[in-house]
Amino acid sequence: MTSREQALALDALDPLGTLREHFALPPGVIYLDGNSLGALPKATPARLARAVQQEWGDGLIASWNNAGWINMPRRLGDRLAPWIGAQPGEVLVGDSTSINLYKVLHAALQMQPPGRRVVVSERSNFPTDLYIAQSVVSDHGGELVLADAPEDIPALLDARCAVLMLTHVNYRSGRMHDMAALTRLAHEAGALALWDLCHSAGAVPVDLRGADADFAIGCSYKYLNGGPGAPAFVWMHPSHAGRARQPLTGWLGHAAPFEFGTHYRPADGIQQFQCGTPAVLAMTALDASLDVFDLARKLGGMAALRAKSLALTEAFIAAVDTHVPSASLQSPREAALRGSQVSIALPAEVDGYAVMQALISRGVVGDFRAGEPGLLRFGFTPLYTRHVDVVDAVALLVDVLATESWRTPEFQRRSAVT
Amino acid sequence: MTSREQALALDALDPLGTLREHFALPPGVIYLDGNSLGALPKATPARLARAVQQEWGDGLIASWNNAGWINMPRRLGDRLAPWIGAQPGEVLVGDSTSINLYKVLHAALQMQPPGRRVVVSERSNFPTDLYIAQSVVSDHGGELVLADAPEDIPALLDARCAVLMLTHVNYRSGRMHDMAALTRLAHEAGALALWDLCHSAGAVPVDLRGADADFAIGCSYKYLNGGPGAPAFVWMHPSHAGRARQPLTGWLGHAAPFEFGTHYRPADGIQQFQCGTPAVLAMTALDASLDVFDLARKLGGMAALRAKSLALTEAFIAAVDTHVPSASLQSPREAALRGSQVSIALPAEVDGYAVMQALISRGVVGDFRAGEPGLLRFGFTPLYTRHVDVVDAVALLVDVLATESWRTPEFQRRSAVT
Repeated sequence: MTSREQALALDALDPLGTLREHFALPPGVIYLDGNSLGALPKATPARLARAVQQEWGDGLIASWNNAGWINMPRRLGDRLAPWIGAQPGEVLVGDSTSINLYKVLHAALQMQPPGRRVVVSERSNFPTDLYIAQSVVSDHGGELVLADAPEDIPALLDARCAVLMLTHVNYRSGRMHDMAALTRLAHEAGALALWDLCHSAGAVPVDLRGADADFAIGCSYKYLNGGPGAPAFVWMHPSHAGRARQPLTGWLGHAAPFEFGTHYRPADGIQQFQCGTPAVLAMTALDASLDVFDLARKLGGMAALRAKSLALTEAFIAAVDTHVPSASLQSPREAALRGSQVSIALPAEVDGYAVMQALISRGVVGDFRAGEPGLLRFGFTPLYTRHVDVVDAVALLVDVLATESWRTPEFQRRSAVT
Repeated sequence: MTSREQALALDALDPLGTLREHFALPPGVIYLDGNSLGALPKATPARLARAVQQEWGDGLIASWNNAGWINMPRRLGDRLAPWIGAQPGEVLVGDSTSINLYKVLHAALQMQPPGRRVVVSERSNFPTDLYIAQSVVSDHGGELVLADAPEDIPALLDARCAVLMLTHVNYRSGRMHDMAALTRLAHEAGALALWDLCHSAGAVPVDLRGADADFAIGCSYKYLNGGPGAPAFVWMHPSHAGRARQPLTGWLGHAAPFEFGTHYRPADGIQQFQCGTPAVLAMTALDASLDVFDLARKLGGMAALRAKSLALTEAFIAAVDTHVPSASLQSPREAALRGSQVSIALPAEVDGYAVMQALISRGVVGDFRAGEPGLLRFGFTPLYTRHVDVVDAVALLVDVLATESWRTPEFQRRSAVT
């Protein structure tokens, strides 16, 4: 258990402490929802303004060449690559997570023999992954088989399994899979391993090449701070180049798009996974946010980010254990199994949604996920969250519960997005 | 033929003349490439800065509700609807043209009986449309049949034809199809009619409901001035709601996405065509650009825009006829067949690409499309192009050809994007 003074002392010694200065966090807010929407980097507004006014406004159509717009999907992919254990030229930025999942899942299924048409995943996976998989297996006469618990996954990797499709860090519990071990099990069973890195990229160590994974996708609006609805990314193991084919055959996945030929001919490697014209303004915001990661690399890189993330989540768990004994931890206690968030459940007689609204009104921004049990989720982005934020957030949670301020009617009202 | 003085007089009388003031056009540039990338509306930078700094930076995750981010795909669709002859609630903004085409082409094919698996289009259609269609027909055991000339289309609408897929205004020639007549022929043959409005929306009259079309898609970065890689749109005739199903089943096309259920259940109507999380920053730029269209509506709307567009393209054709007799017009002389661009070809001994580069160096920005013949394309966006721009552009073209300045080696060098 850390006192507020101890937390301030830890913050003063934090080797990553200067990074917080690069974010435009509103005063009085303890932002613990960077696992849903990352905070705004201070450099983003000016970078975006330059892209809009100089590149678009003054440069107009010539900026496709002169400002390098046409290369952005590959250039941003190269910037992202070291944070997910990929090599330059292997990652492409663009489209959404759901669309990129559709591409790679199609490609993976078509690489497998007709007898393998089962996609194995988890019932607790983020719904869009399950929905996309349902569509793709239906197109292939296949089946989506869902494990109820992580321990059940290995037994499902049989001779019918084409693809093991998992989200590395679970969106509800924050539980992290052992990517290398599960990929190995998938390969031993003849299946391909496809990883969703939405809750991993920029927050926890990811080593796609080291794990020998086959495909990966993810978003850039959570821990990567690319902005609301920022472009997603897609990665393929380079050994699959030339064999994997994806169905969203837009012109910029063509081997020679500016020949304007009549017949589609896929580009080599990951470039084939590009589809339409890149969303330049959205990519520009991501480009700016990746500058903060360049600074983080100089301050210790992912090892330092992970160490701080674990220190924050451990301090939060310890403080909740002590001060909110009625709460039950819904995230792993074991550090190796934990991503960069902590979820807790409150007793059934306490309206967790209303508690979160009351907390938000006090300046502590997490979120609530309905279900059995309903979860209060708290994300601890190591780039800008401080140890003192952990102490203050738990103190405010204690106060909301003690005063029962969550019973105020305004905190019960559900919003469109929950 | 219009003299420069006459052109200036026409501009002074132009009822839409004030709209040019709402664009940040660089001084000294005659921008005739709005058919490729629309110019920057002056209000866009401040609107985008507000979205970044206030909505994202200060509002953070709460802006999904408080700033209405979650509703943007529908709200922007409603704003766009009157310009394409659609009703509120029928249009959705998001993803790219290629991806939206994939969705609607899949949906259209699956609405047809198994005996109808042919998609009819034109060989001169924009390549991404052909590439996507090749992928979709391949998934359905179908065939893509291409007409070599518009006159050949009706004969291809037979009992095997599932979908007539056309781009309303051709990207090379600027030739415009009769949407109502071809849709009627398609329906008489039992086929569905799918229209790509990339070169139409915001530039020419489009009446999807009046034509009784079935599906439509298009981009917003050309005449709609949404910015580089701006989000696309998708429309479906409301009578197809409940029958059409699209395969990119991302979470925001679910009937109740915030229930986070395990099984996909499509939303009603056009909402099903949403897939992933919307690209908020990119949509914000489009939102700002649609404000200019609100002003245009008060100044005569599409009738006024079309009248001006035709006056500009006719003046350009007349001036080229007179002053560049070696050029051959590659766009229709007949106004009813012409979109808002004019393409010309130069004699084989003249390097059209280099001529365009020389013109650009003189401040006249069009573009060049290779092919047989190679085309110099000039777009005439009625929102910001003046009659005097037509006169000046042709005078500069005459000068480039007379002085043969295009023979300068720097104008021969091809860029990555052409």
